[in-house]
Amino acid sequence: MHVLVLHGPNLNLLGEREPEIYGQMTLDEIDRRIRKRAKKLGIKVRIVQSNHEGWLVDVLHQNRRWLDGLVINPAAFTYSSYALRDAIAAVAKPAIEVHLSDIHNREPWRAHSIIEPVCTAQISGLGVDSYLHALERLASQESVPELRRKPAG
Amino acid sequence: MHVLVLHGPNLNLLGEREPEIYGQMTLDEIDRRIRKRAKKLGIKVRIVQSNHEGWLVDVLHQNRRWLDGLVINPAAFTYSSYALRDAIAAVAKPAIEVHLSDIHNREPWRAHSIIEPVCTAQISGLGVDSYLHALERLASQESVPELRRKPAG
Amino acid sequence: MHVLVLHGPNLNLLGEREPEIYGQMTLDEIDRRIRKRAKKLGIKVRIVQSNHEGWLVDVLHQNRRWLDGLVINPAAFTYSSYALRDAIAAVAKPAIEVHLSDIHNREPWRAHSIIEPVCTAQISGLGVDSYLHALERLASQESVPELRRKPAG
Amino acid sequence: MHVLVLHGPNLNLLGEREPEIYGQMTLDEIDRRIRKRAKKLGIKVRIVQSNHEGWLVDVLHQNRRWLDGLVINPAAFTYSSYALRDAIAAVAKPAIEVHLSDIHNREPWRAHSIIEPVCTAQISGLGVDSYLHALERLASQESVPELRRKPAG
Amino acid sequence: MHVLVLHGPNLNLLGEREPEIYGQMTLDEIDRRIRKRAKKLGIKVRIVQSNHEGWLVDVLHQNRRWLDGLVINPAAFTYSSYALRDAIAAVAKPAIEVHLSDIHNREPWRAHSIIEPVCTAQISGLGVDSYLHALERLASQESVPELRRKPAG
Amino acid sequence: MHVLVLHGPNLNLLGEREPEIYGQMTLDEIDRRIRKRAKKLGIKVRIVQSNHEGWLVDVLHQNRRWLDGLVINPAAFTYSSYALRDAIAAVAKPAIEVHLSDIHNREPWRAHSIIEPVCTAQISGLGVDSYLHALERLASQESVPELRRKPAG
Amino acid sequence: MHVLVLHGPNLNLLGEREPEIYGQMTLDEIDRRIRKRAKKLGIKVRIVQSNHEGWLVDVLHQNRRWLDGLVINPAAFTYSSYALRDAIAAVAKPAIEVHLSDIHNREPWRAHSIIEPVCTAQISGLGVDSYLHALERLASQESVPELRRKPAG
Amino acid sequence: MHVLVLHGPNLNLLGEREPEIYGQMTLDEIDRRIRKRAKKLGIKVRIVQSNHEGWLVDVLHQNRRWLDGLVINPAAFTYSSYALRDAIAAVAKPAIEVHLSDIHNREPWRAHSIIEPVCTAQISGLGVDSYLHALERLASQESVPELRRKPAG
Amino acid sequence: MHVLVLHGPNLNLLGEREPEIYGQMTLDEIDRRIRKRAKKLGIKVRIVQSNHEGWLVDVLHQNRRWLDGLVINPAAFTYSSYALRDAIAAVAKPAIEVHLSDIHNREPWRAHSIIEPVCTAQISGLGVDSYLHALERLASQESVPELRRKPAG
Amino acid sequence: MHVLVLHGPNLNLLGEREPEIYGQMTLDEIDRRIRKRAKKLGIKVRIVQSNHEGWLVDVLHQNRRWLDGLVINPAAFTYSSYALRDAIAAVAKPAIEVHLSDIHNREPWRAHSIIEPVCTAQISGLGVDSYLHALERLASQESVPELRRKPAG
Amino acid sequence: MHVLVLHGPNLNLLGEREPEIYGQMTLDEIDRRIRKRAKKLGIKVRIVQSNHEGWLVDVLHQNRRWLDGLVINPAAFTYSSYALRDAIAAVAKPAIEVHLSDIHNREPWRAHSIIEPVCTAQISGLGVDSYLHALERLASQESVPELRRKPAG
Amino acid sequence: MHVLVLHGPNLNLLGEREPEIYGQMTLDEIDRRIRKRAKKLGIKVRIVQSNHEGWLVDVLHQNRRWLDGLVINPAAFTYSSYALRDAIAAVAKPAIEVHLSDIHNREPWRAHSIIEPVCTAQISGLGVDSYLHALERLASQESVPELRRKPAG
Repeated sequence: MHVLVLHGPNLNLLGEREPEIYGQMTLDEIDRRIRKRAKKLGIKVRIVQSNHEGWLVDVLHQNRRWLDGLVINPAAFTYSSYALRDAIAAVAKPAIEVHLSDIHNREPWRAHSIIEPVCTAQISGLGVDSYLHALERLASQESVPELRRKPAG
Repeated sequence: MHVLVLHGPNLNLLGEREPEIYGQMTLDEIDRRIRKRAKKLGIKVRIVQSNHEGWLVDVLHQNRRWLDGLVINPAAFTYSSYALRDAIAAVAKPAIEVHLSDIHNREPWRAHSIIEPVCTAQISGLGVDSYLHALERLASQESVPELRRKPAG
Repeated sequence: MHVLVLHGPNLNLLGEREPEIYGQMTLDEIDRRIRKRAKKLGIKVRIVQSNHEGWLVDVLHQNRRWLDGLVINPAAFTYSSYALRDAIAAVAKPAIEVHLSDIHNREPWRAHSIIEPVCTAQISGLGVDSYLHALERLASQESVPELRRKPAG
Repeated sequence: MHVLVLHGPNLNLLGEREPEIYGQMTLDEIDRRIRKRAKKLGIKVRIVQSNHEGWLVDVLHQNRRWLDGLVINPAAFTYSSYALRDAIAAVAKPAIEVHLSDIHNREPWRAHSIIEPVCTAQISGLGVDSYLHALERLASQESVPELRRKPAG
Repeated sequence: MHVLVLHGPNLNLLGEREPEIYGQMTLDEIDRRIRKRAKKLGIKVRIVQSNHEGWLVDVLHQNRRWLDGLVINPAAFTYSSYALRDAIAAVAKPAIEVHLSDIHNREPWRAHSIIEPVCTAQISGLGVDSYLHALERLASQESVPELRRKPAG
Repeated sequence: MHVLVLHGPNLNLLGEREPEIYGQMTLDEIDRRIRKRAKKLGIKVRIVQSNHEGWLVDVLHQNRRWLDGLVINPAAFTYSSYALRDAIAAVAKPAIEVHLSDIHNREPWRAHSIIEPVCTAQISGLGVDSYLHALERLASQESVPELRRKPAG
Repeated sequence: MHVLVLHGPNLNLLGEREPEIYGQMTLDEIDRRIRKRAKKLGIKVRIVQSNHEGWLVDVLHQNRRWLDGLVINPAAFTYSSYALRDAIAAVAKPAIEVHLSDIHNREPWRAHSIIEPVCTAQISGLGVDSYLHALERLASQESVPELRRKPAG
Repeated sequence: MHVLVLHGPNLNLLGEREPEIYGQMTLDEIDRRIRKRAKKLGIKVRIVQSNHEGWLVDVLHQNRRWLDGLVINPAAFTYSSYALRDAIAAVAKPAIEVHLSDIHNREPWRAHSIIEPVCTAQISGLGVDSYLHALERLASQESVPELRRKPAG
Repeated sequence: MHVLVLHGPNLNLLGEREPEIYGQMTLDEIDRRIRKRAKKLGIKVRIVQSNHEGWLVDVLHQNRRWLDGLVINPAAFTYSSYALRDAIAAVAKPAIEVHLSDIHNREPWRAHSIIEPVCTAQISGLGVDSYLHALERLASQESVPELRRKPAG
Repeated sequence: MHVLVLHGPNLNLLGEREPEIYGQMTLDEIDRRIRKRAKKLGIKVRIVQSNHEGWLVDVLHQNRRWLDGLVINPAAFTYSSYALRDAIAAVAKPAIEVHLSDIHNREPWRAHSIIEPVCTAQISGLGVDSYLHALERLASQESVPELRRKPAG
Repeated sequence: MHVLVLHGPNLNLLGEREPEIYGQMTLDEIDRRIRKRAKKLGIKVRIVQSNHEGWLVDVLHQNRRWLDGLVINPAAFTYSSYALRDAIAAVAKPAIEVHLSDIHNREPWRAHSIIEPVCTAQISGLGVDSYLHALERLASQESVPELRRKPAG
Repeated sequence: MHVLVLHGPNLNLLGEREPEIYGQMTLDEIDRRIRKRAKKLGIKVRIVQSNHEGWLVDVLHQNRRWLDGLVINPAAFTYSSYALRDAIAAVAKPAIEVHLSDIHNREPWRAHSIIEPVCTAQISGLGVDSYLHALERLASQESVPELRRKPAG
């Protein structure tokens, strides 16, 4: 199984940026744990971080035939990127939106994700485990019929 | 570790009710899997389902000294029960809100949870795994500083 | 044919409470007329009144295999009970919402029913006849294809 | 007793137009059933259909001394005709608003009737029976004090 | 004079729950002070606490001929219970809504009470004195013409 | 000077309809007083009443070269007729909107006129004097530069 | 008959301020014309201009037994002064709100007057004639029953 | 192929009315160009202009079996005519909404069309070419599968 | 203890103004009862009424070192005076907002106080007792820790 | 004449992505048809697709002296790119917004374009013909005065 | 050059009031620094502080011929004073709105200024420098054409 | 001291683009004046302009240890870039938002900045002086305690 993991803008600063909200783990450490869990689950992963909306869309396009599932932490693009939303819908594979902190417990504008409607599940507030549980879910999906791709919108 | 698992109204019909949305697994089967995973994690669980808002509040009160963590699927009370919300805040223990389906992908009124602001995390759209990941999270929380109880509201 | 008739909160006070709005007929008298009309139509009825949301949900669950149709006056739960709404959807039988007075002609918040979308018809403003016409409608439904159950939501 | 029955715009196409929503009965058939039931109840009826708002207002004015009650299916004028609303209020006789399908179960803009506040009752979702029950109600109104005309607005 | 005092959900936890908001006085202590003041004023009181909306409605119904006045702290039901609102309106006696803390100074959703329009006065932010002043007001009402029951709604 | 006076829907019932709001003067009497005042001011008037939106638009079109000013009581069309609005804008002559009662003091939907932005002035609440003052204003407009036609919208 | 004429803030600058909106007539000239018309109608007038909300309220209070009618151009206080509104309601005499320009044709916030609901009529867009027509209306009111004071709010 | 072209209210004034917005071409000239293009495309056209909503609905009904496609410039009815909307839906043929000017670039209320949801395409801002492109589109539709009628609403 | 009592605009008319809402007691009588109760409680009071927002702010400033507590009936300034709000916050002493009638039971705009967030409590609907209970509360505050000043906003 | 054609994000996937909405034509095929039509009309075209907002802005800047007209399908940037909007306004040449499907007939957020106010026309729902008609329009604009650039905003 | 500096309500308390928000500098100190800078720039200043809206309007009127520029810190009147807004517009000179703290970073209602639309610039969050930069700007305006007075509204 | 100056999208066109709004100064000239003032204040500046949101975020990240203060003119990103907002918050240095024109005086959507809450001050409407005053402010900040970084959100 092939899974693409996308990290949105500013996540490259993890461990430095507002640690009282995002914790002290760096993105490298998170990626290391994602790869370790993926290996254990027999998943091949590709991981990309970018502060460029267009670049994330391009990566999604270029990997659209390779990937069997998507794990995406859209970060600030959660609230503004209709292009990313359309790209996820266009790729039409199981997609899980993850967040390190609970977006429903911060500023009101962080509670409304425009990415959610094209994803099959959402996990927030579990720190790095948000990513790991998403991987497990995708790994087990063959036997779980209800994870099928919903139509967008 | 002690965990209280609360199932809200109508979940007793699982397996019968609108299986195209909620899947075909019954509540008994879900409880069996919760107990199995809890045993593996060394967690003692108490599980209660009720269609009565007041009864769920009472159960929460009566177990408030016993429990170390709460897993709650508030079902329809997600959108109307301020009493349940205040009770979770009053108990002041780590609480994870779970949903079988992705509430962000159904009717608009199902996207706004009044329970969320008093929980530490939210998992939706993973079927029975929503419960199981919540248990794992609570089991691992000693080493995860950011799971501390937030102030309500 | 089997029909469950549910009366929501405060309807037990009928005849005493604000007679300028609800008329002077008591709930006993209403039930007597429902039973009489049901008998004439060859319908078996069960009638339950409760001020407890959870109890109404339980009754609906317990009778879900017995009933062929539902007549419900949700009273104040019309505006707040998502649990009752989900229960009606889960039972998945023809359901008619009735009101003694015209809910569209009182305080604005009384005009928006959250129960309506899971019912097949609504009758308001006819006093006790609201119930009787609902019974007649259910009795004649075999030959009326458009009364089929709509999907919830 | 004299009753005026008004059919609003596009109802002349009944039986042809979107039969999956409105059923296959034509307006002629509906009128035949209205006349039959009226006869049985000892009611004299006049029935008018028009696609012209002004014409419906004129008809209402011209019959305002003749009629004892009004049954109106305002169709699309339900959502836009303040002139019809004012005319019903000016005539000041018992009026019942009817709809073939349940307007509360379709597009959101179909749920808000501007005609309702000047009517004494509303029946929706019963097909042709919506008209017949309205007739019965008007026929029995002498003995039903709560059907008195409410003030408009 | 007879006064019914109703405490809404979670108030049984007073003294334990978020003492920085609600103070350290327990419900037993509050009840003791209510009884003492009532005795001094020559008032007979009945005091009931419940986490069940339906139960509070039932209690109100059962005491509706006995009581001359009502003091109610609806707690979380302030924001969701249309059934309690209808019950207070149906009982049609002077009613005073009380709150320990100032509900207008907390989360926005706590500022809009659906109970208020059927009460004659509201006292918030005075701690246990909120109850005591309400009792005094009811005791003195014979000579205070403006405390008459307003129409509901 | 030529002035067209338009009366909107239901005004033909004046004197019969809700006299507690609109007074007891009939439309014939109002027209008689308009003609008398017009004569005194040296104005030629044409007066038309209709319940048909399209007819009022047609009349406005047919008289567009004849008229020097317009007095219009749009009645219920005040709130819904974009066609009338566009017609007044297209005719591009001084226009004064009048109302017998003060529309700002009744139901909220009566406070928002969609006709106003294409008129030069508005007079409401003066009964028949609303028409008479409008005539006087138009008669004196040669010397009052600020009554010039504003651009529509 | 005694009439108080109140001019709100900034009207003392008339003739200087934005003449393309308010015209070139000064307040002195307007007052002269008001006095002339009043004399002709047998009305005694007192005229006050102030930029102080409190002063306008005081003047209204001090003249409340003397005045039989009020003409008020609240200017900018139209949109903010609840104190002026309450004062007009407290005085409880016929009151007509006037504006030189048509407030419904300028910035949107100028269209919603909080003074209107306590006045009996509103005249806008007629320049100085707005005041003069208001005087005439008050002078003729003995014979016009519908100008009676409405209850505030 | 048969195409019905409908012009809404006030379009008969084209060339006279606000030429800075609508241009200087008259409706006759527009019709001439429509007929010429239709001839070239082998389309039979019927063209109707009316200021009466009911008349446009009637014309649509009477031609519903004759027409293969509809081109409609609803003008002011764009914002208010639910009757026209229902009629287009009832006729159930390909329909294209056209506007001479760009409705999205004028007053805000001109941006929201209630006709659009029952049309297959919308062309605005191209002057008379809006009509001509619509004709071309309908002529070429046999080979363009995506122009199929969408369900209304 | 020193307490400043402020009466807002129009309260000088009490006893004359709309007695069906505000009762028949004059402001002099209210002040007499305030002074009597203050004397009994050992409180020194200063009482000021003004229709001028600026004057109330000045009085608050001049007494800010003298006063230990504030009782304010802001009347119409409740809904518009941000200056008064900022002044109360700047003075930073315990403040209780009082109203003679229940502001939550009148026009909707009377339900939203902009003064409340800088006060420690609110008492409404108790007539003159609203003031007296406020005095008692301030007198007893030494022993009531929760009456401490909240931060503004 | 020089025309720049811009394709927004995800359009490079055309023919693969959700063909039930966007049809089966690829972007290469669309570009081929644009070039063919341009050649026939004597127009020189440059065509650019990008998933990067910044890149589209740069391209617009670099070609701003070369281009005589713009055809833009902003795709997902329709709803979020104020930078693209400002760039179109800055270039100040005739611009036509096109969409393959009818954006007014899909999710509500797709109906509100922030690009529209700086364009001269909008064509939606015609598939590839949306582009071709736009080219024709630009080609014929010399003789069509109303296509002049409007001021932005 | 002549500049009027106006300080709004409560600013006389600077240095005492909530120093964590407004700093510890008193108004005297601010005025001293304003005069010093003005002297350096060759500007004559008049400085007025008032808690009275009417007084600030009067001062503005009386100095309207003297002043060449206005610096105003409207404080709480920022959110409520339409009279001040109209006065600034009437005076029609360059005006700069200043705030000590960043009003966009506090309570939401502090972010919407009704004074701004009649000012040429706004400076907030720079403490006393907000005033000083405003003075410098006015001093340099002869050479800066874009600071011209905009039309109000 | 090190200061990073960021110019958002389309600012590279300054001097060409809509000079009636933005003036005739080019970006080169603005940069020259920024460098000159910086030199005078002993500040080292780096200046970057980009039309790419991601690039601005990258530049901010790469300079985050180097910079002591930030001056940013976000231009169109003011209204859409949550990524830029999060980046400024993550960098956690004093930041001043500047605009050439007064954004509060243009289209309504230009008045709501999503960048503001993470900045310490905002200067708008001063042309190039907006940048220069910002530099001065940062230079003087050591002695101005209130310019400390606020927490984001």
